[in-house]
Amino acid sequence: MTYFLDGGKDATELKEKFMLELERDPIWRKDDWPNLTLPEMRERTMAKARLIVNFLANEPVHVFRARMAVISTVDPGFWTRLGVHYGLFFGALQSQATSNQLTYWVQKGALAVHNMYGCFLMTEMGHGSNVQALETTATFDEASDEFVIHTPSLTATKWWIGGAAHTATHGTVYAQLIVRGKRHGVKVFVVPLRDPKAGTLLPGISIGDCGKKFGRDGIDNGWVQFTNVRIPRSYMLMKHTQVKRDGTVIDPPLAQLSYGALIQGRVAMVVDSGNTAKKALTIAIRYGAIRRQFASPGADQETKLLDYTIHQHRLLPLLAQTFAMHFAGREVDAMYTALMEQLDSVQPGQDMTTVLETLKETHATSAGLKAYCTWTTLNLIEQCRQTLGGHGYSEYTGLAPMLKDWAVQCTWEGDNTVLTLQLGRFLVGCCREAIAAKTKGTRAKLGAGVAYLAQVPEILKRVCPVPVDAASGEVTDAMAVLDPSILRTAFEVAAACAVAKATREFETALSKHMQGVSATNKKARAAATERAHEDSAHARFVAAKTHSMGYLFGKFVDGVAKAPADLAAPLHRLVQLYGAHAITEHAGVFLTSGYLTAAHVSAVQTAMNALLRDVRKDAVPLVDAFNLTDFVVGSPFGAKDGNIYERYFERVTKLNPPLPKAPYFESTIKPLLERGIQDEEYPELED
Amino acid sequence: MTYFLDGGKDATELKEKFMLELERDPIWRKDDWPNLTLPEMRERTMAKARLIVNFLANEPVHVFRARMAVISTVDPGFWTRLGVHYGLFFGALQSQATSNQLTYWVQKGALAVHNMYGCFLMTEMGHGSNVQALETTATFDEASDEFVIHTPSLTATKWWIGGAAHTATHGTVYAQLIVRGKRHGVKVFVVPLRDPKAGTLLPGISIGDCGKKFGRDGIDNGWVQFTNVRIPRSYMLMKHTQVKRDGTVIDPPLAQLSYGALIQGRVAMVVDSGNTAKKALTIAIRYGAIRRQFASPGADQETKLLDYTIHQHRLLPLLAQTFAMHFAGREVDAMYTALMEQLDSVQPGQDMTTVLETLKETHATSAGLKAYCTWTTLNLIEQCRQTLGGHGYSEYTGLAPMLKDWAVQCTWEGDNTVLTLQLGRFLVGCCREAIAAKTKGTRAKLGAGVAYLAQVPEILKRVCPVPVDAASGEVTDAMAVLDPSILRTAFEVAAACAVAKATREFETALSKHMQGVSATNKKARAAATERAHEDSAHARFVAAKTHSMGYLFGKFVDGVAKAPADLAAPLHRLVQLYGAHAITEHAGVFLTSGYLTAAHVSAVQTAMNALLRDVRKDAVPLVDAFNLTDFVVGSPFGAKDGNIYERYFERVTKLNPPLPKAPYFESTIKPLLERGIQDEEYPELED
Repeated sequence: MTYFLDGGKDATELKEKFMLELERDPIWRKDDWPNLTLPEMRERTMAKARLIVNFLANEPVHVFRARMAVISTVDPGFWTRLGVHYGLFFGALQSQATSNQLTYWVQKGALAVHNMYGCFLMTEMGHGSNVQALETTATFDEASDEFVIHTPSLTATKWWIGGAAHTATHGTVYAQLIVRGKRHGVKVFVVPLRDPKAGTLLPGISIGDCGKKFGRDGIDNGWVQFTNVRIPRSYMLMKHTQVKRDGTVIDPPLAQLSYGALIQGRVAMVVDSGNTAKKALTIAIRYGAIRRQFASPGADQETKLLDYTIHQHRLLPLLAQTFAMHFAGREVDAMYTALMEQLDSVQPGQDMTTVLETLKETHATSAGLKAYCTWTTLNLIEQCRQTLGGHGYSEYTGLAPMLKDWAVQCTWEGDNTVLTLQLGRFLVGCCREAIAAKTKGTRAKLGAGVAYLAQVPEILKRVCPVPVDAASGEVTDAMAVLDPSILRTAFEVAAACAVAKATREFETALSKHMQGVSATNKKARAAATERAHEDSAHARFVAAKTHSMGYLFGKFVDGVAKAPADLAAPLHRLVQLYGAHAITEHAGVFLTSGYLTAAHVSAVQTAMNALLRDVRKDAVPLVDAFNLTDFVVGSPFGAKDGNIYERYFERVTKLNPPLPKAPYFESTIKPLLERGIQDEEYPELED
Repeated sequence: MTYFLDGGKDATELKEKFMLELERDPIWRKDDWPNLTLPEMRERTMAKARLIVNFLANEPVHVFRARMAVISTVDPGFWTRLGVHYGLFFGALQSQATSNQLTYWVQKGALAVHNMYGCFLMTEMGHGSNVQALETTATFDEASDEFVIHTPSLTATKWWIGGAAHTATHGTVYAQLIVRGKRHGVKVFVVPLRDPKAGTLLPGISIGDCGKKFGRDGIDNGWVQFTNVRIPRSYMLMKHTQVKRDGTVIDPPLAQLSYGALIQGRVAMVVDSGNTAKKALTIAIRYGAIRRQFASPGADQETKLLDYTIHQHRLLPLLAQTFAMHFAGREVDAMYTALMEQLDSVQPGQDMTTVLETLKETHATSAGLKAYCTWTTLNLIEQCRQTLGGHGYSEYTGLAPMLKDWAVQCTWEGDNTVLTLQLGRFLVGCCREAIAAKTKGTRAKLGAGVAYLAQVPEILKRVCPVPVDAASGEVTDAMAVLDPSILRTAFEVAAACAVAKATREFETALSKHMQGVSATNKKARAAATERAHEDSAHARFVAAKTHSMGYLFGKFVDGVAKAPADLAAPLHRLVQLYGAHAITEHAGVFLTSGYLTAAHVSAVQTAMNALLRDVRKDAVPLVDAFNLTDFVVGSPFGAKDGNIYERYFERVTKLNPPLPKAPYFESTIKPLLERGIQDEEYPELED
């Protein structure tokens, strides 16, 4: 199973090699993290950078990526700290710089992390998701051939900039390009921040520390203000928009091509969702298989948590979700790689229609999946944490810190709500295209993932073929409902129904807002369209989530279809469980779509108990197949040998050695216990 | 509105007085908490105890309770630290000690916190929810007339004991009573732990620190092991079970009477859920009313977050839930007070049937509500946190620390899953009683909150009277569905349906397990019953949650009915919103119960947009009515003047003053940036 999940023996061995390397170097120890101060954590994290940057120069990119994937699970704070340089700063250079500029910055040390450490200055204190509204300005000074970078207000302060507080010497700054008094939108500029020899700030740069965060203490997020900082014109990254010596601004023909960089980050987060979920479940399931609570009648020992129906209901559907995310992550990663190859092979003058369609679909799909999977994993970690009972509140059992480290994934690289609405807008667009095509007697050309939207009316007529017994009103063969092909249709009908509802709400609102708007008034028509999108936002949000839920299922089934025969049975049960859990948890979505009846839903609910009992038997081996070492799991409760209590006690006592008395006994406790009670009461008055 | 919510002008003024007192004493400052170390936080928290214990001696109990309710919102860590003494340690004395014993401990200083600070030693490392399985032993030594308290194994280590790590001089220890080799179940013993003069541990006592937790850093949770510690026989609390000098054990007639103490804690947590939710929403709604993002077409400024449909969908239903918890908290508090008065006035020899019935219902209801409300508030805080976008990840904006402090509420004082199942068992019991009574031609006597279970078959026949248009298949008057009386029925039918399903699953499982069991074999019959409960656990869990959701709604409507006329309109809209949100989020529950059709649900979904727009107008005034001072809210984003960015920047920079360079620049960053790249690459080989 491990080889199948990793994609082969070689991949597994590579992962094992990386895990072992990390474990053997004491700088990667994790057990004492809860007891480190913020400055200690920051310093230790930075010290790891030197160990890792050398690999980049000396090993193939795919090997380095595999190494970083392991590190992202072991040390999310470090991964972010290096990621702001390689992923964000260097990524911006790759996607926004001309090839001349890229060569220049590589020679200056941008790739080797030599005399240069980058950060990425997009977000401002008052501006996050709406990049176009950023306030920082980059004003072209024709006289000196320079740009003047400036922070015009408090809300324009660059905020949450990873690496800025302590480390970065340079940054890619997103700012409003102003040439001859005219605004040209947000562009990217490389701005030196610190003297790499001295570590001190350059003139005009103010930087501070954003301080304590919920998680990821290893990364030094900072705020940055610019006071008329001058940079040469050539420090503007000009792959797309160019500013000439005389102030001429040349805009790019295809702005969408820069989407590529966004997609990569989001795909990585889908993969990371699956990996982090595996780690969380390794802890929760191994604990559930050891911890005992309440005796079953007639038994000598208390029952294992994982043998309780309710515990199975809490944990095992999360295991199915994890596998679904695993396969979906692999598929979207492949989809992204294929897209990038297509984009790279585009010849000048070539017709771009197909590539742009694929780009648009991949962009929307990855946005929706990033949101769906990071939310799923956030919930999954918290549910796992709660199954540890009181021990889930300890920082030494692994899940509480994991939750804190994870939470930011739902916000950065695109806020989840905003991204979900983006996918929703794409789906509504597809649906409207399909309707328009039908009116013309043709059929809309939609990508594979949304092809079902070409035939919504037909899909909505489908009803589940599993019969309802006329006499009892019940479904006798509940397992027939859990057949993957039936489930696939159920998800498709549910998604089609939700998208159709969002489209209807949009059309109704659009008619209303278009009343009295002239057909030639483009601006007013665009405004009416925006208002219609706004009015139907919630239906669109629901549509996107329903689509992503079904999308994951589809990729899960496809992935399982490729499994060797001896692994098929347990994976098939997980597919059924994913479906059964979705139907019971989101019954409303399935019932309103009309494919399933209340009798089907009720039968699935009842069938789940037996299905869970079967999956429970596989649970520990399935988690073992994730093949995470004890070091990587990092929790005494996730230890493979199941020796949970000894390991837990050892860790807690080693890090918090018992004291003879409280450090503040004399100063604080003793005066309380020995205070003169009489003195503090009101004196009795003679009268 | 504030007076109405607080229960009158006097109550409001008392709260305001307490808030002001805290704000003016610098020891209660909160802004620097994120930057304190664990030892600093522990010491500062303890120093507050002396200020507060004096009030207990000098003010009436109800005033002191009101003071502590304010403190629980301001400083949950301190509240816990004092709570382990007053609520748990002293509470155990009150409910378990004979009146002689209570007098003895009060004279020793237990009430005044004089020469004595208590802790409560129930939970063990390996045992939480199942108190009867605790391993710690208290063996009676007849020769010396003493008990020997002993920790026989690692898993028997007392764990998570608040106050134990640094503070406590005494503890109430839950241990297996063993007399003449026979076990008599878990009883409570007072055990001295530390010398109050010296602060050092007494012989046989081992104590350590549980270390870093997810939240509530102010409380010093510790672990405790006993090695044959001897205490006088009279240190066993003997209000219920007694051990005589000669080793005779006398068991109490009515063990259930000790439930009272559990109920009080749970009722307090329902109230606390509402109070904490108010604080979280004050931050999120005020921020949403200031923060702008994306321009609406034709507008100069970006749109306020709270004016977005989707943001209203995210936040405003949580406001309705908060009001529901407010009123439910008040009602169950009153119910508890009435019950305690009933219990106190019981005369020896009196028939206890009615009192015990009320006790049973209040116990089950408060258990279910504790779980439901603490989960609701946990989710509410996290949703509020996410609406702050990236700033929700900062420790200085209030919601991240609030989430961490809150999370333990879902586990302690009864794990939420276990409590929900307890309520479920009570509901299934009521339903079975009703069926049995009907068979006999009588009607079951059920308490007010579960009276509907006496007529489940009739209830399940109900259908919503709001018509579905035959032609369009749609409900045209969606607001009619949101009439409180229709909604009340909808909740009732949904709960009845869920309880009936759980009961059916139980009965089916029971028939199966009872097969071949003789009618006289009590033990086997009990075992079969337990197995049937276990098989139907998930349906029971769903039933209990559905019941509690409707219970809250009922108390909300009852509470609003008492509102002055000028407050009725906004409260009525919140009642509608609570209902509409429940119907759309839990559509499956309402659809399978048959009261509402898909057309009703769809109409409610669509009607929500307009309802939310109305509630949005009230949102800021409603939050203002919570009347929490800026100090209590403790977030720059929750400030009443809306000056969010200036306050945020000031707090972050004051607590994290900008540095000229990173403290570890020379040691760590400089060597990375200036390392000799050549040396690290492989040397070129001559060939």
